[in-house]
Amino acid sequence: MFFHIEKGAEQPAIYKQIYTHLRDLILDDQLSKKKLPSKRKLAQDLEVSLNSVAHAYEQLLAEGYIYSAERKGYFVEDITRYIKRDEEDVPFPEELKEERMNDRFQPEATFSHIATDAEHFPFKKWRKYQQKVMEHHRTQLALLPHPQGPYELRESIATMIALTRGVRTRPEQIVIGSGTQPLIHKLMSLQAKDTQVAVENPGYQRFYHLLKNMGFPVSPVGLDHQGISIQEIRESDPQWVFVTPSHQFPTGTIMPINRRIELLNWAAESPGRYIVEDDYDSEFKYGTDHIPSLQSLDQNQQVIYTGTFSKTLLPSLRISYMVLPPNLLKSYRNAFGDWIDGPSGLNLWTLKYFIDEGEYGRHVKRMNAYYKAKRATLIRELRQTFQDRITIHNIPAGLHFLVDMDTSLSYSEIEERAKDNKIILYTIRRFFLQDYEMTEKGKKKLVIGFANMEDDKVRESVRRLASLFS
Amino acid sequence: MFFHIEKGAEQPAIYKQIYTHLRDLILDDQLSKKKLPSKRKLAQDLEVSLNSVAHAYEQLLAEGYIYSAERKGYFVEDITRYIKRDEEDVPFPEELKEERMNDRFQPEATFSHIATDAEHFPFKKWRKYQQKVMEHHRTQLALLPHPQGPYELRESIATMIALTRGVRTRPEQIVIGSGTQPLIHKLMSLQAKDTQVAVENPGYQRFYHLLKNMGFPVSPVGLDHQGISIQEIRESDPQWVFVTPSHQFPTGTIMPINRRIELLNWAAESPGRYIVEDDYDSEFKYGTDHIPSLQSLDQNQQVIYTGTFSKTLLPSLRISYMVLPPNLLKSYRNAFGDWIDGPSGLNLWTLKYFIDEGEYGRHVKRMNAYYKAKRATLIRELRQTFQDRITIHNIPAGLHFLVDMDTSLSYSEIEERAKDNKIILYTIRRFFLQDYEMTEKGKKKLVIGFANMEDDKVRESVRRLASLFS
Repeated sequence: MFFHIEKGAEQPAIYKQIYTHLRDLILDDQLSKKKLPSKRKLAQDLEVSLNSVAHAYEQLLAEGYIYSAERKGYFVEDITRYIKRDEEDVPFPEELKEERMNDRFQPEATFSHIATDAEHFPFKKWRKYQQKVMEHHRTQLALLPHPQGPYELRESIATMIALTRGVRTRPEQIVIGSGTQPLIHKLMSLQAKDTQVAVENPGYQRFYHLLKNMGFPVSPVGLDHQGISIQEIRESDPQWVFVTPSHQFPTGTIMPINRRIELLNWAAESPGRYIVEDDYDSEFKYGTDHIPSLQSLDQNQQVIYTGTFSKTLLPSLRISYMVLPPNLLKSYRNAFGDWIDGPSGLNLWTLKYFIDEGEYGRHVKRMNAYYKAKRATLIRELRQTFQDRITIHNIPAGLHFLVDMDTSLSYSEIEERAKDNKIILYTIRRFFLQDYEMTEKGKKKLVIGFANMEDDKVRESVRRLASLFS
Repeated sequence: MFFHIEKGAEQPAIYKQIYTHLRDLILDDQLSKKKLPSKRKLAQDLEVSLNSVAHAYEQLLAEGYIYSAERKGYFVEDITRYIKRDEEDVPFPEELKEERMNDRFQPEATFSHIATDAEHFPFKKWRKYQQKVMEHHRTQLALLPHPQGPYELRESIATMIALTRGVRTRPEQIVIGSGTQPLIHKLMSLQAKDTQVAVENPGYQRFYHLLKNMGFPVSPVGLDHQGISIQEIRESDPQWVFVTPSHQFPTGTIMPINRRIELLNWAAESPGRYIVEDDYDSEFKYGTDHIPSLQSLDQNQQVIYTGTFSKTLLPSLRISYMVLPPNLLKSYRNAFGDWIDGPSGLNLWTLKYFIDEGEYGRHVKRMNAYYKAKRATLIRELRQTFQDRITIHNIPAGLHFLVDMDTSLSYSEIEERAKDNKIILYTIRRFFLQDYEMTEKGKKKLVIGFANMEDDKVRESVRRLASLFS
């Protein structure tokens, strides 16, 4: 054996050195004898303990480098040599490299419609209910969560959305997931690939891209002042329509009852038609009550309702749900009944108590008041700053609104300037899907989100926004 | 107006009653006049406050039941009538109904290989690091998590699996998800639908069903005492092979180095071949060190490594990850770069500190010692109880082992008896994929999981197991 053991505290453990040396010799086919020395012999030669050699041999044995023959000793396996295709190591591609968070973009101002307010999240209450789960639900925590989420949480959600959104559902019909995107992905993966799909234009680009990527023929359908155009739906003749009737994304339109009935009646004409109602931020209404969901008006079980806790709690929590009509639930269970993903049981059980104990309702109510005030300040500041250069689509709902800005800048120029000035700002361009003729003339539409804006930075944010257009 | 307002604390709010009455009259087309009375007039007629009427009108206006014309008053919209296809409501299908958890199956004994031990989970430490996240990472919590998981956690995982599993990866290559199932689903959705896939047989049935459901041609490939058969792989000629080399699921075989190299060399013959190494429970080794992963031996970037925190922490936590070679990472990012799902940011950031502060390593070490002792007790009890009727495949790794039971019962009979006696027990039948000729002669193979068995119930569990075979 031609190797030397380094002793000392800073050296690898002796057994590890023996293991490594022997392994490398075996892999390089440098052991002339197939039989290894006995443990005792090697221990003497290397001047180490028998124990160290025994440990090294055990590891080599476990990994299959050597084998033992009873009363004969240890023998080296006949090890195949590695094939390496390329002579040189391929370096990691530059374009796939990332930066650490700390080195990343820190905005000077944010008008994001995605991020919310974490400062007002009741972390203490959350921890309190989580503590309860940790104490009383260890059995559940040690198991896989139910593929649709715990039944008990689905009961709480069913009761809650019945009260606030008129949604008629049994707990069985609710599927909880890590986002509406993966839920819709699973649901749609069960539909024939030639299923015609219609989405709002402008609209939620993530659903659009998802459906396109899944291979469906997707028609972007235009909007009027009441929401999605029924006439255009009839022209593109889809089987599935994706809508945001409570607060159209991104225009903010609240679909009136008449358009809702027309849309439901369109679906009622054929049992193979479905409407996906994405109720992403309906919890926030400033001035009126909650408006009943499309699902609550549906007479024929053709509406799939989706809701999320991303807006009311935290986007990083990743808890959303969909409510399936019974026939879709059946095929969903057949396909995904043994599917294990979705949010952590710890968070789901915590959410159950959070809802049941009234904390969720109180939080939403508090946030409504808080966002209402911040929104009012923001609108006032925008009006004062931009005067008649701005038109605010002041629909009192949700966590964002549209404005028309009188500017000679193009959409690209606005977006570039925002980027250069470290301002997170989305124009409506992001939400126009294919085929849309976007005029560069006249006023430019901006999406103004206010949830993630710190309340003492409203004035400053508007000032920074103004600097883009000066 | 032909309706009456009920006053009293137990009645709905007055504005709500006015709203509901008017809405129902409008929907039933029972308002003879299209013009509503003025707010003042209606308030007088109903003997309620002007405010209540105003509130009701606002809500009807917001929902689109009425419209207002300046200086003329409020008018009823022309509302389309609902189409209802079926005369009668369809009852919810019996077969889709569920029971509440409390009414569900409570096992008398469990040999589940899925559930783990939640009693020894360091909830206090978890809360401590979570508290840190709640205090110092509010910015991150208010945002969507990175589609691959926070870079900082990926750094921690990269370092950890480099040390324990020899995995060579940059943080960029790690994709964190809610389970290996959804991760593999996304990865495979990018491969051509005629991609030949091979899986171990017996093997992890969830991957098998997933791949079959996705439409891939899947070949179950047999095992010998070293793991998956290279000869059978060559015969079925797949492009992708799914294996569990650290601790074959469910047989427990640890793939020796020679077979590993043969498998890697098979892949190296063509750049379009990939090996998915599911390293689902490699953290648990009783007696030997961790065995280096297949990925660590790969010379050609053709191994996809998947790991999970389901076994070491809690299955209900739903945190797993995969390590992608750069070329697969590229196509993954193109397809899923704007995909939002995966675990909650709160849990991911907590996990980062849990790992970085050494708590994860200490927990795994403690659980190794704990499981080792429980496993030894269980094996002793099994031997004492079943004597020479049982052969234990005593491979000192993981959270389950196989036993051969000498019994005249068939697999179906064993499973039925277990069910009747409220014992969670899986036989190997569950993990045999299609085309497998399972002999009902000779000994029956049982999968004995011990992680979820309470340590003071080992003897009783074995006694209950014995009662099945008496």
